[in-house]
Amino acid sequence: METYSSAGVNVERADRFVERLKARARRSGHDDLWRGAGGYAAVYPVSESEAVAVTTDGVGTKLLVACALGQYDTIGIDLVAMCANDLICVGATPTLFLDYLATGRLDDRIADEIISGIVTGCDESGMILAGGETAEMPGVYEGQHFDLAGFALGRVTRSKLITGEEIRPGQKVIGVASSGIHSNGLSLARKVLPQDDKTYAALLTPTIIYTRPVASVLSQYTGEIKGIAHITGGGWRNLFRLNSAVGYHISSPLPRHDIFEQIAAHVPEDEMYQTFNMGMGLCMIVEGEAEPILELLRQANLAAQVVGVVTEKPMTLTIERSTVTLRG
Amino acid sequence: METYSSAGVNVERADRFVERLKARARRSGHDDLWRGAGGYAAVYPVSESEAVAVTTDGVGTKLLVACALGQYDTIGIDLVAMCANDLICVGATPTLFLDYLATGRLDDRIADEIISGIVTGCDESGMILAGGETAEMPGVYEGQHFDLAGFALGRVTRSKLITGEEIRPGQKVIGVASSGIHSNGLSLARKVLPQDDKTYAALLTPTIIYTRPVASVLSQYTGEIKGIAHITGGGWRNLFRLNSAVGYHISSPLPRHDIFEQIAAHVPEDEMYQTFNMGMGLCMIVEGEAEPILELLRQANLAAQVVGVVTEKPMTLTIERSTVTLRG
Repeated sequence: METYSSAGVNVERADRFVERLKARARRSGHDDLWRGAGGYAAVYPVSESEAVAVTTDGVGTKLLVACALGQYDTIGIDLVAMCANDLICVGATPTLFLDYLATGRLDDRIADEIISGIVTGCDESGMILAGGETAEMPGVYEGQHFDLAGFALGRVTRSKLITGEEIRPGQKVIGVASSGIHSNGLSLARKVLPQDDKTYAALLTPTIIYTRPVASVLSQYTGEIKGIAHITGGGWRNLFRLNSAVGYHISSPLPRHDIFEQIAAHVPEDEMYQTFNMGMGLCMIVEGEAEPILELLRQANLAAQVVGVVTEKPMTLTIERSTVTLRG
Repeated sequence: METYSSAGVNVERADRFVERLKARARRSGHDDLWRGAGGYAAVYPVSESEAVAVTTDGVGTKLLVACALGQYDTIGIDLVAMCANDLICVGATPTLFLDYLATGRLDDRIADEIISGIVTGCDESGMILAGGETAEMPGVYEGQHFDLAGFALGRVTRSKLITGEEIRPGQKVIGVASSGIHSNGLSLARKVLPQDDKTYAALLTPTIIYTRPVASVLSQYTGEIKGIAHITGGGWRNLFRLNSAVGYHISSPLPRHDIFEQIAAHVPEDEMYQTFNMGMGLCMIVEGEAEPILELLRQANLAAQVVGVVTEKPMTLTIERSTVTLRG
């Protein structure tokens, strides 16, 4: 059996590093920021009532899947999705996007395809592609390798900021379907799966951009949405980011894509849930009626259902008909 | 003789790409942005009178110099400097910084050193290190290679936005000294210079962060500073970014560091000026008295002098006692 760590990605080491980093960063000025749920974005007030939210992300080794297939026109969608989906977790409306594209030698066709994906993603998420940096770095990137980072800025009013503080046991967890593996755990997936075109094509399916459907939910049901978790690196453990006083029980998980079943043949089940989205790209914690919200999501062609409830067991996630328990 | 292109960096190809990119990006929402001089940052209004300015940059192959020397505690200063120095060109006050650090395998010591540089840079520029992304990407980065990208946000009020539109022939050009090569042209420098520790140590000298001295100039002499150019990729051609209706004549250039003289033995003079900062890390276009501004800069331990004037020849830069003429 393989793990994320055996595939060369040590999440614990990265977590420890981020903790040390936070301790250093906290020294100066962090008190000026508002607290958005899960730290999905830094929320910086620009007036008494208004703030901008900013976040950065990359697409990890999904890049190598694009390279292997020679298909570069969707990876930009993933890049935008990774950032935009983080912004909505604090209730922000994605507004501006900037990209960083670094490569060994800029290939016009590849670069144009990458950018076409970024433009598609910006259009879909309602963001302006406001700037970017394109760097040729011979010696850092070999062959057709490249890296992509994205920076997104959103706007949020104080009254609509999602803090996660009002999450309480008994509230419902709505799961919104992913399109597949999205942009997490690719190093592990690539290690265990056959490297054929069909498998790689499944891996390359672009990450869903949830911003417009979530915006319509938030505009109609503000106050009922107590938390939103983008199921990104760390898999279902992302739920623990919202509020450390509660836990979750998932009783009716969304169907999992074939790709997860294929990976699961080689990876322990707990590792699956703490690495991949397992069919659920986004969670919403809801107080009150779920049905009207589900209806809105379905109108946007997103499969969504109540998958479970918030529990009283702090930082503990259990899954029905599974021996897996995740702990924060 | 070598050129930036023969060192593997094709500026024209990158420029063409950026032009195509801009054309695509312009489609949606760009009219909502205010125009800051030179496009050094995207300026997004958050109210009638207030805006945020955002920019992204990396440090290019200066990374490889840090790797070669095994000294990682200054490259983060360069990263912050590249972004912060761009923000001040539109008159913005740097406020938030986010970093993207991608590597093949996260080495605790190296990562901590990189971050210590970023923290130093944030302290020096008055920015909050508000977030970041740390990615382990085995297969993209080999050995101890890594990449770094930065994203900075600043604030600017409409009345203090520097647009470059008021630049007129006859105004003075103040040159502010660089500390050395800063973070541009490293691929070319590394190609032509000997790869010994002394040379590499000179190349690794961190980029000067100009934000605090420039902020004090701007607070006392708003209205007299008509343009600011960060002399970054493209060398002295950066001046052309400010206003396409004018040109420049440089009559009293700042002293050049030894490192430029060493490079110049292998690189044509025009290539030197359109690749490197040549001793001048920042330019300010000034209407009125220069002396009080120079005095403020010198108090901040920055060497600065009037290096030339704005001319009527559009997009043309001439240098006294040199046959070099740059054209936009």
